[in-house]
Amino acid sequence: MNNKIKVIAFDADDTLWVNETYFRDAEVAFAKLLSKYETKNKIDQELFKKEIENLHFYGYGIKGFVLSMIECALELSNYNIKPKTIEAILEIGKEMLEKPIELLEGIEEVLQALQGKYKLIVATKGDLLDQERKLEKSNLLKYFHHIEVMSDKKEKDYQKLIKHLDINPSELLMIGNSLKSDVLPLIKIGASAIHIPFHTTWMHEEVTEQEKQNEDYKTLASIKELPAIL
Amino acid sequence: MNNKIKVIAFDADDTLWVNETYFRDAEVAFAKLLSKYETKNKIDQELFKKEIENLHFYGYGIKGFVLSMIECALELSNYNIKPKTIEAILEIGKEMLEKPIELLEGIEEVLQALQGKYKLIVATKGDLLDQERKLEKSNLLKYFHHIEVMSDKKEKDYQKLIKHLDINPSELLMIGNSLKSDVLPLIKIGASAIHIPFHTTWMHEEVTEQEKQNEDYKTLASIKELPAIL
Repeated sequence: MNNKIKVIAFDADDTLWVNETYFRDAEVAFAKLLSKYETKNKIDQELFKKEIENLHFYGYGIKGFVLSMIECALELSNYNIKPKTIEAILEIGKEMLEKPIELLEGIEEVLQALQGKYKLIVATKGDLLDQERKLEKSNLLKYFHHIEVMSDKKEKDYQKLIKHLDINPSELLMIGNSLKSDVLPLIKIGASAIHIPFHTTWMHEEVTEQEKQNEDYKTLASIKELPAIL
Repeated sequence: MNNKIKVIAFDADDTLWVNETYFRDAEVAFAKLLSKYETKNKIDQELFKKEIENLHFYGYGIKGFVLSMIECALELSNYNIKPKTIEAILEIGKEMLEKPIELLEGIEEVLQALQGKYKLIVATKGDLLDQERKLEKSNLLKYFHHIEVMSDKKEKDYQKLIKHLDINPSELLMIGNSLKSDVLPLIKIGASAIHIPFHTTWMHEEVTEQEKQNEDYKTLASIKELPAIL
């Protein structure tokens, strides 16, 4: 690893704690609510389409996901959906917002080992309130300088982050589970990145083999390997 | 004004541009959709109650407002609401998210006069994506170092902001239309604040005469008066 690193930015969901699993569970619950109208497969497909269609309106996070579920339910039912089913969808969202925090293995030891040596931040594209709440529940708040909420995680968003941090690209290391959002855009702008895959990835975050080629990043099986390579 | 100020933070909604007016319009449209179930007055009251009840789930911003409208519509109609009415509520939200930016008078001249002399930031508790979009549409992006999204605007949130900016409280000046959110908490933590009232204020942002007493802040009728008093 280059030795200029000053700031280490951690993605939050599925890097610090479990998250995508809860979206998968919510999709199962949603498909069950609509099972008299369509197959699980069709419902999944339509919900994904709706989420992407609404991304420029709602951005990332649970609230936009709930609004897309409602819109999808109206359409898939041909406007025959029962008000109680809409209420059940709102309930799925509130349950997601109240999930307990399940830290990924090794996170706390690694943060302990790195604190003081680097400025540690959280860089996430979820809702700020939701991420702050999770960070508080996680007891990890004390390790981080601040939470950086990003409306997206493309090259221009990381350039904004670097400007905001008043550092050079080479002084930033990003760590996350999404090649598309946490790794490739950083390599492109001259920063460093480490990929730590999570067992499930949202379809929207998947990248092709071609996109991965010739890019200079490390992949770790667990965050526990991080201190040794820095 | 004290001459230690290094960072001037501007609230966004109803300080840089019109916003609350659009929520008032949305409330009118919502009450019209539900007019066969209840009076406008009752609908307004129930929606406000629902928003406050859901604040710890959804935080501030348009997406949470839409989710609260939907929940309120289910309950006020005794679960007789038509799916097409739910769709119309989603539409109210999307229209809000697409509103053109109407800058308040004098904003651009003031930012021009201050840039280079202070670090200028936006400090807002809306959704990041929504605020970034508005800032881009407004053509004001070039004046600001970055946007600070806050999950709330209480004393502890401003303390976090000050830590994040690596400054002392006395080096921060906040400018905004809400006494409760943009002014009083700053005075309490030793920062400076200037109040520029907007013609309409969300009920949740109102403060009592007692809370205002003995607090050391300036009120301006227009942002145009700002450069002269700095």
